[in-house]
Amino acid sequence: MDSIVTDNPRSGRIRKAADLADARCRKRFGRFLVEGPQSVREAVSCAPGTLRDLFVDKDLMAAPGDAAGTERSGGARIAAIVGQAVDAGVYVHPVTSTVMRHLAPEAQGIVGVADMPSPDGAVAGDVSGGLVAAFWQIRDPGNAGAVIRVCDAAGCSRVVFVDECVDPYSPKVVRSTAGSMFHLPIARMGTEEFLDWAHRRAGDVMAADVHGSPERPPESLPDVAAAMPSVRGVSVLFGNEARGLPDGILSRVERVVSIPMYGRAESMNLATSAAVMLFTMAMADRGMSSRVGRIVRR
Amino acid sequence: MDSIVTDNPRSGRIRKAADLADARCRKRFGRFLVEGPQSVREAVSCAPGTLRDLFVDKDLMAAPGDAAGTERSGGARIAAIVGQAVDAGVYVHPVTSTVMRHLAPEAQGIVGVADMPSPDGAVAGDVSGGLVAAFWQIRDPGNAGAVIRVCDAAGCSRVVFVDECVDPYSPKVVRSTAGSMFHLPIARMGTEEFLDWAHRRAGDVMAADVHGSPERPPESLPDVAAAMPSVRGVSVLFGNEARGLPDGILSRVERVVSIPMYGRAESMNLATSAAVMLFTMAMADRGMSSRVGRIVRR
Repeated sequence: MDSIVTDNPRSGRIRKAADLADARCRKRFGRFLVEGPQSVREAVSCAPGTLRDLFVDKDLMAAPGDAAGTERSGGARIAAIVGQAVDAGVYVHPVTSTVMRHLAPEAQGIVGVADMPSPDGAVAGDVSGGLVAAFWQIRDPGNAGAVIRVCDAAGCSRVVFVDECVDPYSPKVVRSTAGSMFHLPIARMGTEEFLDWAHRRAGDVMAADVHGSPERPPESLPDVAAAMPSVRGVSVLFGNEARGLPDGILSRVERVVSIPMYGRAESMNLATSAAVMLFTMAMADRGMSSRVGRIVRR
Repeated sequence: MDSIVTDNPRSGRIRKAADLADARCRKRFGRFLVEGPQSVREAVSCAPGTLRDLFVDKDLMAAPGDAAGTERSGGARIAAIVGQAVDAGVYVHPVTSTVMRHLAPEAQGIVGVADMPSPDGAVAGDVSGGLVAAFWQIRDPGNAGAVIRVCDAAGCSRVVFVDECVDPYSPKVVRSTAGSMFHLPIARMGTEEFLDWAHRRAGDVMAADVHGSPERPPESLPDVAAAMPSVRGVSVLFGNEARGLPDGILSRVERVVSIPMYGRAESMNLATSAAVMLFTMAMADRGMSSRVGRIVRR
C-alpha cells in the first residue's frame, strides 16, 4: 500500500486510470474501472487476479472507532475490502477526496483498475454448460447492468452481448451489475458467430419475442418451460430495447418464446422480461415444473 | 377542439397545467399530467372520462401525407389519438412547440390533464379480487413506474403504495408505467390500514423479503407458488429499495417469500424481483404449477 496520499489529480497514474472512462482507452489498454465498494469486493473475492490497482479516498480508510465519526460503518466496510485487496496482492493507493472526485465521482470513494478477461473468442469452444442468456444490440448501460445481474441471479452460466451493444466494461454498466460482472463470464460475439456457437450447444436456441414472425409464431413461456427437459445447453436470445429482434434472426432459432400478458400491458421492459423468462426456466429446471412437464406430456 | 393555436406559455390555462408537475398543486386541484402518446392513448381508451384537456404540438397534428414530412408516421399516430380523444369528449388544444417545451418537455409533443381517481379510501371495502401487489416506502419514480407496469403485465387486480411513497401521479411515474397507470387501480394506504385491509382479504398476506426475520424465516418462491391453491385474495408486500421491510412488518404477515438465488448475486432490484415473484404466482395460478402443487402435496 502506498504510504503517501496522492493529492494531485493530474499525476500520471491518476490520469491513466481516469482515461479508462473512455471506451477507446479501455480497448487500447485492456483495462477497465471497477467503481464502488460492492463491485470492488466482488472483483477481489470472485475474480482473483483481475484487480491491479485500487484507489481509495483516504478519509474512508479510517478504521472503526477512529475519528471517522459518521463514516464509521462505511469506514469499517471499506477497511475490510482494502484489507482483502492487500492480501490478494492488489496495489492500494490512498487519494484525497479531490482526486477521487476527479477520477470517479460516482464510485463512493473506492475505485479499482482491472484487467479485461482474455479475448472473447476463447468461449468459442465452450458449447456445453447451462442456460446462456444473449442480448442482441442492447444499448442502454443501465439495462445492460440490470440484465447481467438478473442472469447471475437466475444461475446462467454465461452472458453474451451480440452484435453492436453497449460496452459491458463501461463504468456505468459495471456499477449497475452490483458485482455480478465478476460472477459469470461475459462474451461478445457477432450475430453469425453467436448463432453458429449456440447451435453447436446441446439445447434449443430460443428467441424471447412478443410477436414472433409468420414462420415462427411465439409459444407461451409456461408451456415451453413445462415441456423443457433441462436448461443444459439452452440459449435464450433477447432483442434490442426498442426494436426487439428482426425476422431474419427469428427465422434462425428453434423457437420463439413470449411471456403471457395477463393484464392489459402490451409488454414489459428488457430487464423485467429477462428476469421472468430466465427465472421461469431456471425454476422449471430445478424441479418445480419439470414435474408439470411430465403431466402435460402424458 | 380549439381552432386557435396557443402560442403563449404564460397563458392561464398553460400555467395551470404546468403547475401540475408540482405535487402540492396535484393534491390541491386533484389533477395530474399524462405525458406522451402511449399514456394518453391508454388514458383515453382504458380510463374513459379521466382525461379533461389535451395539449398537442400543432406540428404533430398534421395528417399523414401532409407537409409533416419526416414526422409522418408520428403524425398519423398522434392524429389517431387526437381523433379518439375528441370522440371521447376531451377538449383538445393545439399549442406551439415553445409552449409544449414549457409545459412538458419530455412528453413527445402530447400531454393531457386528467382527474385523479376517487379518494383511495374507496378501496377499503374491496377485499375480494385477485392478486394484489403492495409496495412499502417505494421512493424512486422510475421504479414505481416499472413496478406498476409489471403488476399490470402479471394481471394483478390492484396496486397499493403503502406508507410514505413517491407520488404515483408524478409525471415521471406516469410516464414510466407506459400506460399501465390506466389499466388497474392504484391505491395509497398507511401501514396499519394496509395490513388490516389485506388481512380481511381471502388469501395470505405475504412479504417479499430475502432474509425474513427470526420468527418469519423466508420460504422459497417456487415452493410457495406450487402449494398455493389460487392467487385470489393473496396480497404480496414488497419493501423499500434500499432497506427492504422492517421486522415489525415481517412479523405481521402470514409468510415471507424469497426468490432463490441460483447464481452468486445477493439479490435483484425491486422491479425485477417483483416481476419474478408476481409472474411465478400468476403462472402457477393459471395451471402451470397448480398441477405441481397437487403432486407436491401428495
